[in-house]
Amino acid sequence: MPPQPTLAGTVNRPGRSFSLESAAFVRLANQIRPFLRKWTITVADRLHPRRIRISSALLLAVCLLAVSAARGQQPAWLRYAPLPQTSQAAWAKIPPAIVNLDSSPTAASAQAEMLRGVRSVLARTLRIESQLPDEDAFVLATPAELRAAFPHYDPPALGPEGFTLATFFSRGHTYWLIDGADSRGILYGAFHLLLGMARGENFAAMQGPDSPAAPIRWTDEWDNLNGTIERGYGGRSIFFDSGQVRADLTRAADYARLLASLGINGCAINNVNADPHLLTPEMIPEIARIADAFRPWGVRLALAVDLSAPQTIGGLDTFDPGDPKVAAWWRAKADALYAAIPDFAGFVVKADSEGQPGPSKYGRSPAVAANVLAAALAPHGGVVMYRAFVYNHHLDWHDAKADRARAAYDIFHPLDGQFAPNVVVQIKNGPIDFQVREPVSPLFAGLRQTNTAVELQVTQEYMGQQHQLVYLPAQWQTYLDFDLHAIPNRATPLKSIVEGRVFHRPLGGFIGVTCVGLDDNWLGSDMALANLYGFGRLAWNPNTSADTIARDWTQLTFNANPAVVSTITRVLMSSWPMVERYTGPLGLQTLTNITGSHYGPAPQSQENNGWGQWIRADHTGVGMDRTDSKYGGDGTGFIGQYPPQVAALYESLATCPDNLLLFMHHVPYTYRLHSGETVIQTIYNLHYQGAEQAADLVTQWQSLRGLIDPEPYNATLTMLEYQAGEAIVWRDAITRWFHQLSGIPDAQGRVDHYPNRITAAQMQLQGYTPVDVHPWETASGGKAYVCENRDLCTASATVTRPAGWYTVAVEYFDYRDGVSTFDLLLNRQTIATWSAANNLPGNAPDGDTSSRFTLRGVPLRPGDVLTIQGHPNGGEPAPIDYLSIEPEPNAAAGNSQP
Amino acid sequence: MPPQPTLAGTVNRPGRSFSLESAAFVRLANQIRPFLRKWTITVADRLHPRRIRISSALLLAVCLLAVSAARGQQPAWLRYAPLPQTSQAAWAKIPPAIVNLDSSPTAASAQAEMLRGVRSVLARTLRIESQLPDEDAFVLATPAELRAAFPHYDPPALGPEGFTLATFFSRGHTYWLIDGADSRGILYGAFHLLLGMARGENFAAMQGPDSPAAPIRWTDEWDNLNGTIERGYGGRSIFFDSGQVRADLTRAADYARLLASLGINGCAINNVNADPHLLTPEMIPEIARIADAFRPWGVRLALAVDLSAPQTIGGLDTFDPGDPKVAAWWRAKADALYAAIPDFAGFVVKADSEGQPGPSKYGRSPAVAANVLAAALAPHGGVVMYRAFVYNHHLDWHDAKADRARAAYDIFHPLDGQFAPNVVVQIKNGPIDFQVREPVSPLFAGLRQTNTAVELQVTQEYMGQQHQLVYLPAQWQTYLDFDLHAIPNRATPLKSIVEGRVFHRPLGGFIGVTCVGLDDNWLGSDMALANLYGFGRLAWNPNTSADTIARDWTQLTFNANPAVVSTITRVLMSSWPMVERYTGPLGLQTLTNITGSHYGPAPQSQENNGWGQWIRADHTGVGMDRTDSKYGGDGTGFIGQYPPQVAALYESLATCPDNLLLFMHHVPYTYRLHSGETVIQTIYNLHYQGAEQAADLVTQWQSLRGLIDPEPYNATLTMLEYQAGEAIVWRDAITRWFHQLSGIPDAQGRVDHYPNRITAAQMQLQGYTPVDVHPWETASGGKAYVCENRDLCTASATVTRPAGWYTVAVEYFDYRDGVSTFDLLLNRQTIATWSAANNLPGNAPDGDTSSRFTLRGVPLRPGDVLTIQGHPNGGEPAPIDYLSIEPEPNAAAGNSQP
Repeated sequence: MPPQPTLAGTVNRPGRSFSLESAAFVRLANQIRPFLRKWTITVADRLHPRRIRISSALLLAVCLLAVSAARGQQPAWLRYAPLPQTSQAAWAKIPPAIVNLDSSPTAASAQAEMLRGVRSVLARTLRIESQLPDEDAFVLATPAELRAAFPHYDPPALGPEGFTLATFFSRGHTYWLIDGADSRGILYGAFHLLLGMARGENFAAMQGPDSPAAPIRWTDEWDNLNGTIERGYGGRSIFFDSGQVRADLTRAADYARLLASLGINGCAINNVNADPHLLTPEMIPEIARIADAFRPWGVRLALAVDLSAPQTIGGLDTFDPGDPKVAAWWRAKADALYAAIPDFAGFVVKADSEGQPGPSKYGRSPAVAANVLAAALAPHGGVVMYRAFVYNHHLDWHDAKADRARAAYDIFHPLDGQFAPNVVVQIKNGPIDFQVREPVSPLFAGLRQTNTAVELQVTQEYMGQQHQLVYLPAQWQTYLDFDLHAIPNRATPLKSIVEGRVFHRPLGGFIGVTCVGLDDNWLGSDMALANLYGFGRLAWNPNTSADTIARDWTQLTFNANPAVVSTITRVLMSSWPMVERYTGPLGLQTLTNITGSHYGPAPQSQENNGWGQWIRADHTGVGMDRTDSKYGGDGTGFIGQYPPQVAALYESLATCPDNLLLFMHHVPYTYRLHSGETVIQTIYNLHYQGAEQAADLVTQWQSLRGLIDPEPYNATLTMLEYQAGEAIVWRDAITRWFHQLSGIPDAQGRVDHYPNRITAAQMQLQGYTPVDVHPWETASGGKAYVCENRDLCTASATVTRPAGWYTVAVEYFDYRDGVSTFDLLLNRQTIATWSAANNLPGNAPDGDTSSRFTLRGVPLRPGDVLTIQGHPNGGEPAPIDYLSIEPEPNAAAGNSQP
Repeated sequence: MPPQPTLAGTVNRPGRSFSLESAAFVRLANQIRPFLRKWTITVADRLHPRRIRISSALLLAVCLLAVSAARGQQPAWLRYAPLPQTSQAAWAKIPPAIVNLDSSPTAASAQAEMLRGVRSVLARTLRIESQLPDEDAFVLATPAELRAAFPHYDPPALGPEGFTLATFFSRGHTYWLIDGADSRGILYGAFHLLLGMARGENFAAMQGPDSPAAPIRWTDEWDNLNGTIERGYGGRSIFFDSGQVRADLTRAADYARLLASLGINGCAINNVNADPHLLTPEMIPEIARIADAFRPWGVRLALAVDLSAPQTIGGLDTFDPGDPKVAAWWRAKADALYAAIPDFAGFVVKADSEGQPGPSKYGRSPAVAANVLAAALAPHGGVVMYRAFVYNHHLDWHDAKADRARAAYDIFHPLDGQFAPNVVVQIKNGPIDFQVREPVSPLFAGLRQTNTAVELQVTQEYMGQQHQLVYLPAQWQTYLDFDLHAIPNRATPLKSIVEGRVFHRPLGGFIGVTCVGLDDNWLGSDMALANLYGFGRLAWNPNTSADTIARDWTQLTFNANPAVVSTITRVLMSSWPMVERYTGPLGLQTLTNITGSHYGPAPQSQENNGWGQWIRADHTGVGMDRTDSKYGGDGTGFIGQYPPQVAALYESLATCPDNLLLFMHHVPYTYRLHSGETVIQTIYNLHYQGAEQAADLVTQWQSLRGLIDPEPYNATLTMLEYQAGEAIVWRDAITRWFHQLSGIPDAQGRVDHYPNRITAAQMQLQGYTPVDVHPWETASGGKAYVCENRDLCTASATVTRPAGWYTVAVEYFDYRDGVSTFDLLLNRQTIATWSAANNLPGNAPDGDTSSRFTLRGVPLRPGDVLTIQGHPNGGEPAPIDYLSIEPEPNAAAGNSQP
């Protein structure tokens, strides 16, 4: 079989470049790939008529790009939808003029944004004045600049980067002040005003001071120099391509504006598994071009660095952080960076983790390594973000005391107090790795003389990879609000610790691992933008509720129709608990394939390897015993890393919350939860509940038809329909696996009994042959049926159900490569045709690729024959699993009464 | 100056072809033409990476085509939007099966349509049965076929092509019958059911028989063999290109389906100024391919023929219809046509008209000519549609008795009784030519022993050419309902005459001159589809009200939201009276440029030429005196062509309706109408009212934002905004012209006084120079200001108005060629930029090209300077007329109170 064309590339035009590897392109290109033909285009020009031949894939690509050019790549909230006439009354008295008393580029961006936003939302133009006019006006300024203009103005106290919106009466006029503590504050004030205006708020309601919770509000992007992005699902890098910085950085500037609109002030642009070549003298001017694109929006650029760089690119014979030559190399490198990028933000470090080089090679501690970098950056005001994600991924699973969850605390807690003042230890929210639910990392309470920041993941690595809807602010809020009881008799929720308020730390904050790409919608899914928006809102003010964020985002993205706002908010808010139910509830973690895709169900992959994400499931029970001998437990002692009040909560089966039970304890399957139900039955029940909820999201979304724009309506409906099928894949795989392991049947008789299914093995087959599926639980009987070396295979079943209306579904496997097509026939009538054209992370039949085609409203009678026809394509053998025939409610056919 | 590239062409792919000359393409291509650059596209393929360079225009073209391919070219009513869940209950009992007892291809189309529609509207699949099943089912059949299946079925009487929808209970089951009088009846019944279903009607409500009003329900298309279309505004021909029938006739088949959905059963495919080559032996098999595409949808193909064909292509030395050789030639031609097209519909004839050859050359009458063709067609069942649009276009305007309006009656009335039974005289609704208002042609009452059909114009030749919204069913209804009093003491409205009911004629009906093209929306404007839909509805049943048609179309095209339906219906229904007001009220006819574009205002073009559309305006009065000496008048006698009751109505100034007054009478400007107002003041008032209404349509449309899909919302908003400006151009031109001619000032002081305007002559100019405008009344002072031989010209004005919020508008001229760009500056601040990128019918500054850019919400103070910057392009010298500065209501600036 010849290699498949990648069907990817880039289009550059002056001022903008586009990726042909966007998810939308790949989806569409895959759909038409089976029909690839040349189109002939004749272009008549009075001078030079000419013909060109163009493939349909290229045609489609070009079309998508042109459509992108028309749409622009701004998120919906920066498109500033016009307010309806009826809501404009609150702004009838808006001043006609605007004056910017601050000379910074950031304040200039704020003024430009005010003009753009007011023009779009209210259809009014603001007249730019170069000095305070003798009429009503918006005034953009810092407190000092305002005091110079209005000697009687008494500005409220503001934290750095904060702002006050206020009116001030002087000389018979009303001045609408955007009073920024500094130039970023002016910009954030302008965005705050405009986004409030776009949601129909009036100016009076938004007056008053507002300041960000913490100084560090960054995204980390995991872009590689070759243009790919680790854990990125929104297209190729906006920064890099083919080992170089992109010529066209329009999208980088757009991204900085997007970040600024959310109050985000820093961005680390490259993979934490860093390429040392980024620090070569040739690359620094290129990196500076990205920083130039960021600067008007107040976004500082940071780089992830490889600690071995002094050796790999510096020509030294060592990268020992204890060696003065190495320290000098880093100082010189920092000096060079600051010469090119005066507002360079600093370094992000992943060291001694998952194969990255680190100080352990020389017997040095992370503190020594961090401080060498910190010393190089300190004269220029830069910071080191040292990641606490350090662990041994060759743990011995035979050792009942071994525990990856302990690693960060074990390594970093002893170093508390040793880090330089401009080092921040960057700690993932949980002790493992962005699982569907984890406890908060105990290290947050363990570092009291060290700056800390929480690392959250916006990109949905373990959470459906943007093929599924998961609204993460709901999850993040449970972490941020969790009280670590770090100081007796005082509330010390995680958010207060990273704000620096608990341990009085000058630095700290919030990191969102985002991984945006060239896709129009940045993240590969329109709905995923709610997560980036939500990260920004929480980083600014972690006390904002996830529900409020969902409402605001929905209003700005769709419209203010109460039915739209309440439905989409409900859909968003219910999504994470739903995904937890159909993946890994009770603290089991996501239960995905952790050694491969991080996508589909593969519970066994947790076990018996060095990665340490064990759930210790056997035929009698399940869960990691992480109790501590201090409290009488004999587990790994992880719980002992928490302050006593939290440790007591988790140590005791009586108080440990059900949703973390199996993270903390090993219990028999028959152990009864607080609900009174057994563990095993709860696992079964929650998976069925999750799948039902996923189906219900489709119905809820369908109620939005005609109430929102058709493009995002259809895209999200397609995603939710896929997700409803994927929830069934998850449900079945996890429940089968536990059933097989525990031997305990589902009390409701659902698991391993599918009365509405006809498996391929039970059908009349022509050409289809069985192959083993790994893991076995992701297909009926552990087998998929594939059509090898043929153009067409069929699988038929005779209906024995009573006459009526049915929903017919076909479970098939959709590889990343190849686009098989399928027909569904009722007797000899073709009733549906579809393509396996999704871009899922796998090329084998398993839980990553299992997909469902659903057709509602099919009339069946006993004796009817349903046939699946599979047409293989490009190495994908039109693989199938089963047919589902489910009666529809209240729709017995054959008894019509018009 | 080198010639401009046409930026046009075609794309062919298997199964579909696209025009790059669609209005949408031309608009977009023009917009980007100033920025034409090469884009580089890199396509990575693991085997063969390659780069191509592509111009942005081609890129855009290709994109549009791909988008078209995705959208399809079906009108919205054939997209069968899904019914909301809540409205599906009425169809819960729909049968699961469908059986088609009729073997015709048309009935097969009906069955396929039922499957498609039910699947889309209700998300249900119907199971196809090959014979009557033992369960509830839809049954498609003729009465005879039904009687064979159900001996007890007693079908209601049906006219040809009619249908009955009914339920029939038999063998314990309910059969939902689509009982068609014939195979077309089955198809029309299926469409009726599906379109009712899509509007949320239930089956019970639509039961009963329904038959079309008349046998002839055709569209005439005026396509030329080279691919252009006379009076077509929706792109190039769907039938022809470069002298040939198109290879890909997908759009022709789509069009037949569209026509069938409206009950239209015939289509004449070529220009009535016919190309004789269409009848050559080489072309007939090609024409047959079009007929093949029509046939499954029951649409019969007709051809417009050139009566000189026996000579020009037949090699005879004459085309005298009295010559037996000529008759034999036509017989042989008809035989050849029917051999290739067994259901060929017949010929359309435009003869002795506007330069077309005709029987007058040989002293023969139209009846002789028509009957020769009729004799050739009669053996095969074909008909001759002989157009009554015959007149002398070299009339002597000095002759007070000369009257083009008389021509059709004068020529055809004497021939009544002489036409063969398969001849139909095809009469335009009015005696002139599709003007904004005309009286009904008296010929309809004058032909009592002759078949007649009414010719209506769907394409908006004189009515804004699809650049403007005009809902024509409202106009057509006034014609169809007009009682000609053809038989004493009996209502004889026009519709009854062409139905054949008044004079008991076997043939007759409705012709819609449609001129669809390759544009996605067929007609160049989404809203214009309401006219085609409305033509079909009225041709089926002329008693349907225009309001009902507007409501149904809106529901099918947009959605059933009551606010949407009522707003769009109101917009549609008000549009024709509005256009009448701002163009030519009181029976003046459209007052457009009749010798050129048929588009913009040019009242003088009516006068002093041989075309006979005179309005006889002089310094004392206006109007054509068409009174008749029989009644004491001394006009042209046109009124005397009407039956006495109608003649009396028009002859008397006391009873002649105001809206036709000046068509019938010449009166002084000071003549007082029934309203008590003078003619001249009424002309002024109505033009101002019309322009105000056009501005109000924009506001009404804006209330739909978010309630309908954004694409048609935005396209129609853009059109209505242009139209509001064009209404002002019309208002000003017509009122100025009458003011100049009559010397009578506007009692309200508006005409020739524009206090909110600053003309270019009053501005500080850099580079702009004056040129004369023809006609003078279409620009301020008869001058436009152009920027010749420079890259940039400016025109500036200092504001003297009080401080406040203003709407600023720039009146400029937008030629078909070239795309100038303009900037509007407030002091040194650029507050708007736009391109003259519309595709208007002219290349000079006049009423065809005058256009308006409007910017609302501009804050101005005394002393502010507004500057227009014009950048010429491609032969268009960025021409300007004036600046308008209009205060906004309740928006005094500088007094804000948040």
